[in-house]
Amino acid sequence: MLAEIITIGDEILIGQIVDTNSAWMAKALNQAGIKVKQITSVSDDESHILDALALTENRADLILMTGGLGPTKDDITKFTLAKYFGMGMRNDPAVLKHVTEIFSKNGRPMLEANIRQADVPDGCTVVPNLNGTAPCMWFERNGKIFVSMPGVPFEMMYLMDEEIIPRIKQRFELPFIYHKTILTAGLGESFLAQRIEDIEDSLPETIKLAYLPKLGQVRLRLSSSGKDEQQLQQNVNLYANLITDRLGAYVVSDDDIDLEKVMLNIMDQKGLTLSAAESCTGGYLSHLITRHPGCSSVFAGGAVVYSYELKESVLGVKPQTLEAYGAVSEETVKEMALGALKHFKTDYSVAVSGIAGPGGETPGKPVGTVWVAVANRNRVVAKLHHFSNKRAQNIERSAAAALTMIVNLLKEDEELV
Amino acid sequence: MLAEIITIGDEILIGQIVDTNSAWMAKALNQAGIKVKQITSVSDDESHILDALALTENRADLILMTGGLGPTKDDITKFTLAKYFGMGMRNDPAVLKHVTEIFSKNGRPMLEANIRQADVPDGCTVVPNLNGTAPCMWFERNGKIFVSMPGVPFEMMYLMDEEIIPRIKQRFELPFIYHKTILTAGLGESFLAQRIEDIEDSLPETIKLAYLPKLGQVRLRLSSSGKDEQQLQQNVNLYANLITDRLGAYVVSDDDIDLEKVMLNIMDQKGLTLSAAESCTGGYLSHLITRHPGCSSVFAGGAVVYSYELKESVLGVKPQTLEAYGAVSEETVKEMALGALKHFKTDYSVAVSGIAGPGGETPGKPVGTVWVAVANRNRVVAKLHHFSNKRAQNIERSAAAALTMIVNLLKEDEELV
Repeated sequence: MLAEIITIGDEILIGQIVDTNSAWMAKALNQAGIKVKQITSVSDDESHILDALALTENRADLILMTGGLGPTKDDITKFTLAKYFGMGMRNDPAVLKHVTEIFSKNGRPMLEANIRQADVPDGCTVVPNLNGTAPCMWFERNGKIFVSMPGVPFEMMYLMDEEIIPRIKQRFELPFIYHKTILTAGLGESFLAQRIEDIEDSLPETIKLAYLPKLGQVRLRLSSSGKDEQQLQQNVNLYANLITDRLGAYVVSDDDIDLEKVMLNIMDQKGLTLSAAESCTGGYLSHLITRHPGCSSVFAGGAVVYSYELKESVLGVKPQTLEAYGAVSEETVKEMALGALKHFKTDYSVAVSGIAGPGGETPGKPVGTVWVAVANRNRVVAKLHHFSNKRAQNIERSAAAALTMIVNLLKEDEELV
Repeated sequence: MLAEIITIGDEILIGQIVDTNSAWMAKALNQAGIKVKQITSVSDDESHILDALALTENRADLILMTGGLGPTKDDITKFTLAKYFGMGMRNDPAVLKHVTEIFSKNGRPMLEANIRQADVPDGCTVVPNLNGTAPCMWFERNGKIFVSMPGVPFEMMYLMDEEIIPRIKQRFELPFIYHKTILTAGLGESFLAQRIEDIEDSLPETIKLAYLPKLGQVRLRLSSSGKDEQQLQQNVNLYANLITDRLGAYVVSDDDIDLEKVMLNIMDQKGLTLSAAESCTGGYLSHLITRHPGCSSVFAGGAVVYSYELKESVLGVKPQTLEAYGAVSEETVKEMALGALKHFKTDYSVAVSGIAGPGGETPGKPVGTVWVAVANRNRVVAKLHHFSNKRAQNIERSAAAALTMIVNLLKEDEELV
C-alpha cells in the first residue's frame, strides 16, 4: 500500500513554520507497514490543492492531508475537497454537538464561524476529533482513501494513532517494514563505507542501506519489507550484526535512539547520576536529556550559568580563574564541571563553555570556540572544539560533543573496572 | 518568478528526520521576492526523482533541490540529474582540488569515493561549496534554473545566502513580497476573526490575511506582493494598524518575532535582568531564551532542578514545603521563583514545576498539571495550568505559558509605574 501526504498552508511555503506533521505521519505510517511515496506541501489555494489531489490520486492508494480546516476565511480545505469529489455541504449534528460542548465547557459563546465548523462535504465520513473543533473527514473513491485532518499537531497525532491507522489496519493486510539503525560516531561517511564495502556489496536486493550523517555521527540504516516479520528481521539483523562487528568501537548504539538516550541507558543501568553546567548551550543540553521520560533517575539537574557571577556563586568557579583565563578556557570549564560534581552531588558532571556567536569573540578565541569537560570522582577531562560561525549550529554541536564525550568516558571507565 | 523545492532522501519519507531545509529555503526565497509554489519530498529513487523534476519543471521557473549528494551508494541525485538533462559525467578539477584540500587539512587519506565526489554532469555549472565536499550544481534549460545542493543544513544555508540568491537577484528583477505579522495571545482564532471581521472584509484583493494559531498564541499575517516596495508596505501597514488598534491588549507584538524575543526586547529596553528555575521544562525555557544572540544582557542564567535535593540546595526551597505540598504546588513554585530571585540576583525570575509525563502523576495532580510563577522585588504570582498528556507538548506549552506570564507582568508593572 502506497501513501502520500499533502500538507496544506501558506505558512509552510513562506517558511513561517517547519512542517513537522509530515515527518511524524511518515514515521507512523512506516511503522504500520505503509510506504510513503511522496510528501507535498501546497498553499491555501483551491486550484493548487485540486491539482495536487489529482496527481496524488494517480500515484497513491492512501492520501493523508493536514491543514486548512480552521474556522477562518483562509481555511478552504473542506470546500475544495467537496469540489474535488463533486459533493455538496451538510451540517453534521454530531460535530455540532461536540463543538458546542467544547465551547460551553470553556464558558465561551458560539460564533457563527464555530457553527460552520460542523459543515462537511455530504459524501464524507466524519472521524471524531476529540481534541479540537475541526472535524476529520474520510473520503473513498475507486478503492482509494483520502483523509483530511487538522494541522494542529496533537489533534492530528491523536487522530492518526487512535482512528486512522487502526481503521486502515482493519481493512488492509499490510506488509511489515523493518528498519535497523546503527548509530556510529567518530568516522566519516566515506570511511565507514570503505570499511564495510564488501558487506554492502553482498546485501541482497531486498535490503537497502542508507548513510545518514549528522554532527559527527553517522547512522547506518538497513531497511526491508515483506510479509514474514520474523524472516525479515532475521535477514536484516544478520547484516546489521556483520556491520556492527566490523565497525567495533565506532558503534555507539545498535538502536535508532538519540545520543542522549544512549547515555541515559548506560548510566541508568549502572545506577550513575549526572549533572550539567551549561554556558553557551544555555539549557539545550539539559533539554535534550530531560525530554526523555524517566531521565530523572539519572539526571539530577544543573545550572545555566550565563553570567560570571553565576559561574562563581552557583558552581564555585574561582574569580581568579575567570580573570586569568576567561570563561571560555580549559581551566574554567574544568572548574565548572568539578563545581557541578560537588554542588549537585552526582557521579558524573558535564560542563560546556564556548562562544556561540555571533558576537563575543576575543583574540585567539573566534566564534565557535567551545570547551567541554566531563568530571567524575577520579578525573576531569576537557576537550577543545572549533565549530562554525552560526549560533544555532554551535549550540547543537556543542551539546552533541558533550554527549559523545560522556558516552566515550563511560565506556572507558567501564573498561578500567 | 515561481520557485519549487524538492528535498530528496528516504530518511524524510520514513519520518526519520524532519525536513527543516525546505522551511529555511522557503523563507529565504520569500524574502528575496520569490514565491514558493510547492515543496515536494521524494525518495532516493531514480524514476521518482525524474517524475518529480518533470512535473516541477512544468510549474516553476526555479527548481531548488537538496539531498542525495553524499559519497555513498544511496546518493544518486547527480547521476539522476545527468540522466534528466541527457548529460555525461566529468571530473571537475576545481572540486577535486577543494575536496583534496579538505582531506589534507584534516590529515585524512582520500578514498576513491571522495575522488568521485568531484564527478558532476558535464553540462552543469559548479557553484563552490566552501563548507563541504559535495559540489553544488547549477543547470539551465529553456530559461528555467535547476540547482542541486547538499542536504547538510549549514552547507545549504551558506550556498543559498552567498551564492544562489545573489546570482538570481543579479539575473532577474524580482517583485517585493511583504508580510506583516501581528502576534496575539489570549483570544482564540474565531474570536479574533469576529472582532476584526469588518476590517478583513474591507481588505483589497491584493492583501491576504492568514490566522496562524500555536499554543495559546495566534499570529495574524497580512501578505502582499508588488513592484513598489514603499506603496506595498504602506498599504499592508495601514490594515495592520487597524487590526492592532482593534485588538488592543491582545496584541503582544506587531513584529514576527518569538514570544521570548518580545520578552527580551522589553526587558533589555528597561535594563531588567531575569533568571529561571526550571523543573518540568528541564532547560527548554532557558534554551528558548539563550538561542537569541545578545540575550546575556537580560538573562543571567538559572537552574534546572529535577531532584528535590537541588530544589533545596540550589534554590533554597524548604524541605517542609516540598513535604507538605509536593514539588508541583503553588507553594513550591513560588519558593523556587523567590529562591532564583535571591540566589541569582536578578530583577525578575520565573519558575516552572509540573508533571510532564508520561509517569509521575499523583492523586489530584494528573499528567499535564503545571505551576508557573514569576517573581520580582515587589511580588510573586503563580498560575496553575492543565495541559495535555504528552510530554513534549507539556514542556513546550509550559515554556510558552511562562513566557506569556512574564510578558503580561512586565506590561502590568509598566502600567503601575
